[in-house]
Amino acid sequence: MTYNDAIRRLPTRINGLDQVALGGLPEGRSTLVTGTTGTGKTLFAIEFLARGIQHLDQPGVFVNFEERPEDVRRNAASLSFPIEQWERDRHWAFVDATADAEDGGEVIVGNYDFGGLASRIEHAVRGIGAVRVSLDSLGAVFSRFPNSAVVRQELHRIAHVLNRIGVTSVITAERTSEYNGVSRYDVEEFVLDNVIILRNVLADERRRRTVEIVKFRGTTHRTGEWLFTIDPKHGIVVMPLAFLTPLAVASRTR
Amino acid sequence: MTYNDAIRRLPTRINGLDQVALGGLPEGRSTLVTGTTGTGKTLFAIEFLARGIQHLDQPGVFVNFEERPEDVRRNAASLSFPIEQWERDRHWAFVDATADAEDGGEVIVGNYDFGGLASRIEHAVRGIGAVRVSLDSLGAVFSRFPNSAVVRQELHRIAHVLNRIGVTSVITAERTSEYNGVSRYDVEEFVLDNVIILRNVLADERRRRTVEIVKFRGTTHRTGEWLFTIDPKHGIVVMPLAFLTPLAVASRTR
Amino acid sequence: MTYNDAIRRLPTRINGLDQVALGGLPEGRSTLVTGTTGTGKTLFAIEFLARGIQHLDQPGVFVNFEERPEDVRRNAASLSFPIEQWERDRHWAFVDATADAEDGGEVIVGNYDFGGLASRIEHAVRGIGAVRVSLDSLGAVFSRFPNSAVVRQELHRIAHVLNRIGVTSVITAERTSEYNGVSRYDVEEFVLDNVIILRNVLADERRRRTVEIVKFRGTTHRTGEWLFTIDPKHGIVVMPLAFLTPLAVASRTR
Amino acid sequence: MTYNDAIRRLPTRINGLDQVALGGLPEGRSTLVTGTTGTGKTLFAIEFLARGIQHLDQPGVFVNFEERPEDVRRNAASLSFPIEQWERDRHWAFVDATADAEDGGEVIVGNYDFGGLASRIEHAVRGIGAVRVSLDSLGAVFSRFPNSAVVRQELHRIAHVLNRIGVTSVITAERTSEYNGVSRYDVEEFVLDNVIILRNVLADERRRRTVEIVKFRGTTHRTGEWLFTIDPKHGIVVMPLAFLTPLAVASRTR
Amino acid sequence: MTYNDAIRRLPTRINGLDQVALGGLPEGRSTLVTGTTGTGKTLFAIEFLARGIQHLDQPGVFVNFEERPEDVRRNAASLSFPIEQWERDRHWAFVDATADAEDGGEVIVGNYDFGGLASRIEHAVRGIGAVRVSLDSLGAVFSRFPNSAVVRQELHRIAHVLNRIGVTSVITAERTSEYNGVSRYDVEEFVLDNVIILRNVLADERRRRTVEIVKFRGTTHRTGEWLFTIDPKHGIVVMPLAFLTPLAVASRTR
Amino acid sequence: MTYNDAIRRLPTRINGLDQVALGGLPEGRSTLVTGTTGTGKTLFAIEFLARGIQHLDQPGVFVNFEERPEDVRRNAASLSFPIEQWERDRHWAFVDATADAEDGGEVIVGNYDFGGLASRIEHAVRGIGAVRVSLDSLGAVFSRFPNSAVVRQELHRIAHVLNRIGVTSVITAERTSEYNGVSRYDVEEFVLDNVIILRNVLADERRRRTVEIVKFRGTTHRTGEWLFTIDPKHGIVVMPLAFLTPLAVASRTR
Ligand SMILES: Nc1ncnc2c1ncn2[C@@H]1O[C@H](COP(=O)(O)OP(=O)(O)OP(=O)(O)O)[C@@H](O)[C@H]1O
Ligand SMILES: Nc1ncnc2c1ncn2[C@@H]1O[C@H](COP(=O)(O)OP(=O)(O)OP(=O)(O)O)[C@@H](O)[C@H]1O
Ligand SMILES: Nc1ncnc2c1ncn2[C@@H]1O[C@H](COP(=O)(O)OP(=O)(O)OP(=O)(O)O)[C@@H](O)[C@H]1O
Ligand SMILES: Nc1ncnc2c1ncn2[C@@H]1O[C@H](COP(=O)(O)OP(=O)(O)OP(=O)(O)O)[C@@H](O)[C@H]1O
Ligand SMILES: Nc1ncnc2c1ncn2[C@@H]1O[C@H](COP(=O)(O)OP(=O)(O)OP(=O)(O)O)[C@@H](O)[C@H]1O
Ligand SMILES: Nc1ncnc2c1ncn2[C@@H]1O[C@H](COP(=O)(O)OP(=O)(O)OP(=O)(O)O)[C@@H](O)[C@H]1O
Ligand SMILES: [Mg+2]
Ligand SMILES: [Mg+2]
Ligand SMILES: [Mg+2]
Ligand SMILES: [Mg+2]
Ligand SMILES: [Mg+2]
Ligand SMILES: [Mg+2]
Repeated sequence: MTYNDAIRRLPTRINGLDQVALGGLPEGRSTLVTGTTGTGKTLFAIEFLARGIQHLDQPGVFVNFEERPEDVRRNAASLSFPIEQWERDRHWAFVDATADAEDGGEVIVGNYDFGGLASRIEHAVRGIGAVRVSLDSLGAVFSRFPNSAVVRQELHRIAHVLNRIGVTSVITAERTSEYNGVSRYDVEEFVLDNVIILRNVLADERRRRTVEIVKFRGTTHRTGEWLFTIDPKHGIVVMPLAFLTPLAVASRTR
Repeated sequence: MTYNDAIRRLPTRINGLDQVALGGLPEGRSTLVTGTTGTGKTLFAIEFLARGIQHLDQPGVFVNFEERPEDVRRNAASLSFPIEQWERDRHWAFVDATADAEDGGEVIVGNYDFGGLASRIEHAVRGIGAVRVSLDSLGAVFSRFPNSAVVRQELHRIAHVLNRIGVTSVITAERTSEYNGVSRYDVEEFVLDNVIILRNVLADERRRRTVEIVKFRGTTHRTGEWLFTIDPKHGIVVMPLAFLTPLAVASRTR
Repeated sequence: MTYNDAIRRLPTRINGLDQVALGGLPEGRSTLVTGTTGTGKTLFAIEFLARGIQHLDQPGVFVNFEERPEDVRRNAASLSFPIEQWERDRHWAFVDATADAEDGGEVIVGNYDFGGLASRIEHAVRGIGAVRVSLDSLGAVFSRFPNSAVVRQELHRIAHVLNRIGVTSVITAERTSEYNGVSRYDVEEFVLDNVIILRNVLADERRRRTVEIVKFRGTTHRTGEWLFTIDPKHGIVVMPLAFLTPLAVASRTR
Repeated sequence: MTYNDAIRRLPTRINGLDQVALGGLPEGRSTLVTGTTGTGKTLFAIEFLARGIQHLDQPGVFVNFEERPEDVRRNAASLSFPIEQWERDRHWAFVDATADAEDGGEVIVGNYDFGGLASRIEHAVRGIGAVRVSLDSLGAVFSRFPNSAVVRQELHRIAHVLNRIGVTSVITAERTSEYNGVSRYDVEEFVLDNVIILRNVLADERRRRTVEIVKFRGTTHRTGEWLFTIDPKHGIVVMPLAFLTPLAVASRTR
Repeated sequence: MTYNDAIRRLPTRINGLDQVALGGLPEGRSTLVTGTTGTGKTLFAIEFLARGIQHLDQPGVFVNFEERPEDVRRNAASLSFPIEQWERDRHWAFVDATADAEDGGEVIVGNYDFGGLASRIEHAVRGIGAVRVSLDSLGAVFSRFPNSAVVRQELHRIAHVLNRIGVTSVITAERTSEYNGVSRYDVEEFVLDNVIILRNVLADERRRRTVEIVKFRGTTHRTGEWLFTIDPKHGIVVMPLAFLTPLAVASRTR
Repeated sequence: MTYNDAIRRLPTRINGLDQVALGGLPEGRSTLVTGTTGTGKTLFAIEFLARGIQHLDQPGVFVNFEERPEDVRRNAASLSFPIEQWERDRHWAFVDATADAEDGGEVIVGNYDFGGLASRIEHAVRGIGAVRVSLDSLGAVFSRFPNSAVVRQELHRIAHVLNRIGVTSVITAERTSEYNGVSRYDVEEFVLDNVIILRNVLADERRRRTVEIVKFRGTTHRTGEWLFTIDPKHGIVVMPLAFLTPLAVASRTR
């Protein structure tokens, strides 16, 4: 390790995001993406893989905890991401981490085998030579844990495994308020190296979407909230820098 | 599955709603409709079926957890929906999921058999060839579960069954505040694919009703709050688009 | 049941209220009246019966959970309601549901026999041919239940019995804040068909009383808050419609 | 009981209070006086008895739960109330309900014998022919109860006994915020017939004392907040009505 | 006891404080001094003793629960209080009530022997003929108690012992918010006779220190917040009365 | 100990900080540095050691609880701190207090052996003659404790050991809100002698970093919030005093 061995970036190629992130996400590390419902967490997780495949030939593994592969495929289809095709071409692989909801039995609190999941992720990554991994969304799994101390430890465990495997990953998690804290259990953000918040703020009966990089450990990034839209054609589109002047003060009277 | 296999819409035919929803509710999926008391959740659930019957010849199944069939029939009568007639014509079927309130025994926490209910819903759907299903309202059932992790899992289970059966459904749930969060347990909105909030905001001693689509997974919709009224003749009436300018800023000073 | 079999109204004959309620309370159903302390819930419950006796010859049953019959009689006397006289004339009957406070033993949580109470109410209703029933106030009873799921179920049970007996009823319940939620346990309002809130708002060191109909299931009503006073002579007096312009905006700066 | 048998008033003779109370406190009933620390609850309880002795020759019993008789005597001395003299003259009697704090043993939750206390109060009342009773303050006792349902029941029991004995009483209780709710457990105000709040509001670094009658069941009173001071000579002095214009709006911007 | 046997004052001789307190702290009683971290509670407790020694030849006992004697000595040294010298001259004595933190064993909740502590305090007071006692800070001890009912009872016990011994005392306790309530457990202020709050308010990125006397039972005092500074030379300095005009309104907009 | 034996300062040599701290951190004591995620706690802990090595030849020990040594090394590399080189030169030593996350077993609540850790820290300090110690961050450890009373006691224990060893230390801890309280458990700040808060406030979509010294027990410091930036070249840079005028009022409207 030498002194110029600082944090390298993996360009996400999500429209406009890399300019805010000053190059991309920290390479080889995990980034937590939190947001209330419908803020675009799953879309972010999908596009993180899709843009890597489309522009950089980087295969990706999608670990789905809440929505099933067929749902993800269909949702992605609306943005013209040919996920099935990519699966056939071994650019994309699913690791299905949903429990079998209908037939599945009791909720066994705490009974979630991350050891087994880790092996499956590692196997999938090796199988297609994946560079990127998305985990969407940990909310369902965390809700089985008895308290936030366990959430904390298990999240550590996941991040550690991903780091050891050598991939750059996006982990989505839930929050329930736009105004307080960062994540549901108030611990997730302290465990992971990097944190991005997606917001969907209701102001004057209008919704406005913003993205903010809250921290990148050991390196720099732009701060503050940046406007973005979800476009049926281009997906997430962070407003080009040239347009990015401070948002109107009036819109933040609260 | 091909690339243009995106999310199709089922027109609700509720007055003005489909324009905001850009065509209707996502077909084959469940939409969560939340609201505080009296915001019109039950009316939404009824009209979702009634408009399908009236305009598109689509039979519907109404699963009632809180109000009994005779109450629903009578409440619907005020809007001239001839539910009894429709039941005789096999356009409408009730699945009565209320416990027997008066004679019924103890509250057995967690003791709600969704397996049995699923069969009854499936049976009713097959029986009349239903295209639409409304479940109103899950609040009473959820209150029997010991914690939000179980709410989460059971809601998953319900949504999964409805999806497998192939119907488009509306599921109503409760919230207790107009200002914080989306639903009572703060997990319902993460489980379902689509979320609509009905609001009844008290401002300057006046009530104003609004509807907002919070998310449609994998597809687009109009954002923000849209005014609507409940008309004794026409039921829910979302204001025509031409009138839909941003609501006055002054009305949202809080 | 025919299509014009909508919700009929029972005029309360409380001064000015029926104009806001567009005719009266939904007949044959229960209406929840909530308010913080001293907002006039008990007065509402008393007047609901008294006005029926005075103006429409409708006998009424008063189920008292917190204040004893002699207290209710005395409080009513200040408004010149001759309750004892009415009791003798079989226009008014008490069902005393207070526990024996002084000599009474332990608080047995959950140990409240609603089955027995239901019979006593039914017996009293039959006895004088009652058309109206007031229950004031459920707060004391609910506080014995272990959690809000039980409150929910028991309230369902009560409403169901009253509905079966065929009376129109008013049920009062407590709330502790003028600004958040509707009722103490946040579930009462979802169980009952109709909800009215009485408020006593402190603004600029002055108190102002308002009444608001939050919902009437299956039918229409005026919305928003309406000013009323409690007059030593006329009891509750909702301001006549002609005076009812929107309340000053300045008074709601919070 | 006849129709003009409404609620009679017992003049407190506390300076200026009876004008706001429209004659005095409801006779033969209990009035809850709540306030944050130092708002003057104990002073109110003392003066209620002292003014009765000084001006109306009405003996009084003081039940002390928190401060010991010698402390009450000394605090009263600063206002020139000769309590010891009154005790000798059988105008004033203490019922000491403090537990023996220093030597006393464990805190036994729920273990407070109100039956025994009731007898002691009754005995003291009979002994000097007391017309007034003050209980100050129930906060310490309530803190021994396991939950608010027990607080509710026990407060009922106390009020019932006092009512049966035939005295007019003042019961003080604690609150911890000037802005939310009425009392510490949010149930005390629903149990008692009459509620008065003493406030000590910090505005612009200045404290201002106000008194508000929140409810008098079955009778009328002035509403809103009224300024008062605590004068080293005259004790509580509510501002004379002539000066009582609405308090400045600017002082309530919060 | 005679009528002019009102509450006497013990001048603190803390700069400027006695003018606000109208002479000093109530003699022979305990005064609760609460504040968030760093507001000057410990300094107040130290100066209360130091000024007594310096100006009135009154010995004092310092009961330390959190900071050890050597820390108190060193912190006091910065203000030129020669505590070691005073200890040698028998003007100052420590009662060390810290548990042995490093080697000490388990946290035994509830297991704090106040009986033993009381004897040690009494012994120290007798030993040097102490007139003043400071206890700093009860926060650590209280955190061992299972609930606020025990905090309440134990604080009563302490105050009672100090009162019996005949000393005037200062007891410091913690609060965690400048805006809500008075103390951590919301009961401390109701137990003690006198309450002072120290505040350290952040306004416009600046900190401002204020002191407020919230109550002195049975006697008078100035009300409202008074500015003070902590001066490296003179310690606590409350602004001289001549300068004490109402603080700027603008600084309290929240 | 003599009277001029006041609190000495250890210059941190972090850019601009010592001017605000009036010389540096209190020598031989522990300073708590709290902040929400990404505020720069770890950077502060690293720079505290790095600046000591670079400018004052003072070796330092870094106790890492959350991020592993290799992560700290890499994050530090971005600021050109040659930690590996310093380790080889015995200027820097790690005490790795992370549990083995991946293979590690169950979360044993309360099962954290601070005795063992204390020995390891002492050994490392002796080994390189360390003058400074950083502990980053206690959040993960605290989450294993059953309640805040244990957090309190264990933090006492740590501070005591560090004090006995004779080092000056920085201990980082988490907070989850910029607006309420000081630390996660609301007790940490009362245990330690010195407290610094790092803030990252979102105002008008912009982030602004500030540092505030909340308390230095027994000595003086500048008060209020001071702007700082995190510069890719110079790390933490508190704005030079000349520029430090009060921050704009408008930026703190909330
Ligand atoms: N080399 C650098 N150049 C510029 N900024 C940097 C650099 N290193 C770190 N930062 C900034 O510092 C922030 C993180 O700092 P740090 O890791 O110390 O925070 P923290 O308070 O320890 O967070 P956590 O609580 O999550 O551990 C980054 O988000 C980044 O904004
Ligand atoms: N093809 C599309 N065109 C336009 N908007 C879309 C499209 N796909 C998704 N969206 C928008 O993105 C929102 C949902 O995004 P997404 O599912 O990523 O949110 P999420 O944060 O994962 O929500 P949840 O927490 O519920 O899983 C939709 O509500 C819709 O507004
Ligand atoms: N026929 C009608 N004409 C006018 N307004 C009506 C009519 N029917 C219902 N409403 C309005 O709709 C409101 C109730 O709607 P609905 O029962 O659907 O609410 P909800 O959200 O289901 O409430 P809850 O949570 O209590 O079940 C009524 O309070 C009334 O204001
Ligand atoms: N005869 C009357 N004349 C004038 N005002 C009256 C009269 N009777 C009652 N009031 C007013 O009504 C208030 C109390 O009304 P009521 O007892 O109905 O309230 P409530 O909501 O039932 O209170 P609680 O929750 O404590 O039972 C009194 O405080 C008083 O202000
Ligand atoms: N003789 C007096 N002269 C002037 N003011 C007095 C006098 N006696 C009391 N006060 C004022 O009254 C306040 C305390 O009143 P009191 O003890 O009745 O309050 P309280 O509400 O009972 O408080 P707690 O809840 O702590 O028991 C004192 O703080 C003081 O400001
Ligand atoms: N000699 C001094 N010169 C100037 N200021 C001082 C001096 N000593 C203390 N201070 C100020 O007083 C503050 C701490 O006071 P103190 O220790 O009494 O607070 P506290 O309320 O006891 O805090 P805690 O709750 O953490 O024990 C310091 O942060 C400092 O600002
Ligand atoms: Mg998602
Ligand atoms: Mg409904
Ligand atoms: Mg009542
Ligand atoms: Mg008192
Ligand atoms: Mg201190
Ligand atoms: Mg860190």
